[in-house]
Amino acid sequence: MSGRAGELSPGGFAERLLAGDRLALARGITQVERRLPEGRALIQELIGSTGSSQTLGITGPPGAGKSTLVTALTTHLRAEERQVAVLSIDPSSQFTGGALLGDRVRMTTHYLDEGVFIRSMASRGISGGLAPAALDAVLLMDAAGFDPVFIETVGVGQSEIEIASHADTIILVLVPGAGDSIQMIKAGIMEIPDIIVVNKADHPLALEFVSTLRRSLPILKRIEKPRIVQTEATTGRGIPELATAIADHRLHLEETGLLQTRRERSLRRRVLALAADLITAELAEQADNDPEIQAVIGEVIARRVEPMQAAERIVDRAPLRSAT
Amino acid sequence: MSGRAGELSPGGFAERLLAGDRLALARGITQVERRLPEGRALIQELIGSTGSSQTLGITGPPGAGKSTLVTALTTHLRAEERQVAVLSIDPSSQFTGGALLGDRVRMTTHYLDEGVFIRSMASRGISGGLAPAALDAVLLMDAAGFDPVFIETVGVGQSEIEIASHADTIILVLVPGAGDSIQMIKAGIMEIPDIIVVNKADHPLALEFVSTLRRSLPILKRIEKPRIVQTEATTGRGIPELATAIADHRLHLEETGLLQTRRERSLRRRVLALAADLITAELAEQADNDPEIQAVIGEVIARRVEPMQAAERIVDRAPLRSAT
Repeated sequence: MSGRAGELSPGGFAERLLAGDRLALARGITQVERRLPEGRALIQELIGSTGSSQTLGITGPPGAGKSTLVTALTTHLRAEERQVAVLSIDPSSQFTGGALLGDRVRMTTHYLDEGVFIRSMASRGISGGLAPAALDAVLLMDAAGFDPVFIETVGVGQSEIEIASHADTIILVLVPGAGDSIQMIKAGIMEIPDIIVVNKADHPLALEFVSTLRRSLPILKRIEKPRIVQTEATTGRGIPELATAIADHRLHLEETGLLQTRRERSLRRRVLALAADLITAELAEQADNDPEIQAVIGEVIARRVEPMQAAERIVDRAPLRSAT
Repeated sequence: MSGRAGELSPGGFAERLLAGDRLALARGITQVERRLPEGRALIQELIGSTGSSQTLGITGPPGAGKSTLVTALTTHLRAEERQVAVLSIDPSSQFTGGALLGDRVRMTTHYLDEGVFIRSMASRGISGGLAPAALDAVLLMDAAGFDPVFIETVGVGQSEIEIASHADTIILVLVPGAGDSIQMIKAGIMEIPDIIVVNKADHPLALEFVSTLRRSLPILKRIEKPRIVQTEATTGRGIPELATAIADHRLHLEETGLLQTRRERSLRRRVLALAADLITAELAEQADNDPEIQAVIGEVIARRVEPMQAAERIVDRAPLRSAT
């Protein structure tokens, strides 16, 4: 059957995506973003072709220079003829969608380069949470042959870290002298990354900041301490060293078997989170139609029953499905 | 029965808390933070005595001056003999607990003032997520007679906004010229607050920033636009105006019936979120012991089944409780 002009035939779609077709990839991502059945079918068809790309989670406070750093790294990787994909995600975005965010991360340097694929994603218009859509998009970028795949998150809240923590290699970008960078050290964000980039290394406080960081390494609970790399993303200084650190980490993951362990843990977490989301959605729907659940919530609103007790009553009395 | 020295008798505990006893309040919060049965019993005993305080959610990017602002507002409210409680929460904190965070928000000005109660809370050591513990702590502060109760969150990720959004009045603190403040406007954070504080109003870019904010108000989807107040928290400029805006908002909520609507919605969301958490925890436990669930996850790890399909299989085949 011939489709409408410009429409992709369902059969050839996955193949075109596998071959690195950018249009197919872009459409595929839109499908998973909208949680369309086509998106799921696509992921099912392509999942066997995923797993060869290194995924790089990039996180850090706003203004740390994450986008500039990703641009500089991309330039470096393009010189080695790597195909680079960037997924830029903003969990806090409520209404602008990718439109305005896109301006910020357009990475004009690489906009016309066929070897670079850039996509922004924001909470709005994404049903079922940002993480499932983002992680599916990463699978598609991986299947399309892009390697590495950057997952750049804006900000460092819990949900941002949650998404970045699914990457093979997690990179935290900090800047010297920024109050929130110091707070971040305090706040334990350093338990997460494999590599810490101190960007804007030309800053007068850079040396002091790096030594503060180094001093804080021994108090980390984790066994493998993060590597610290200094960069100046705007001039490209330190970018080759960062690229080496990233490649080294990939090797380390492979040699130790950690790559497989991490990915298994990530997939397991994803599946259970999705299952929990399904059950939660079912519960919310039930709550709208079930007078008993309404009554229990009413008791809380009347401030006669505390919320946790009400939750237990709901879970106890409402078998989510019958065992028959 | 007499308890050990310094121990609170269970019977008198709730009463002492109701009377505003700071030690009882501090212990009660520790109990709800640790999700101890005593904490739940306490909330159950006191929930009927809650609801008279105005809760104020304070959110905004790091460095916007939220702590200084809360300190200045507290000074202002203390002059009116209000009893003020501050819960400072940091969802991203992984290992420092409240210890280091506490330094930042100690609010030394009010540390010895009996009319001010300050507490820090961080993710670590809190089972079952930060939001339930934080919201229970707010209930206890409310029951102890503190009014208003500030809920100050560090950062503006999704989970931070989730917690602040349970407050009666939501205040977003921004600073002129900060890149992340502009990003925040773009990112739709402005759909959330009832009041936007432009702090550091003495900044050379303040006027321009405020007019950027005002220009963006018409594009907001919400019907009631946020009020914009300019402050200089370090000097106290604008603080009386902010206090008036907060009092006005409370009046507005009461007169329109929105207070009740918002609180009902908040409690309903809390109960359903807790129920979902219970079911999720049950699922994770089941997954550890159920060979069929393990097998389904194994199919995903082998990249033969996409994650969503696996999640559906788990939800479909695993009745969470039998109907018998």
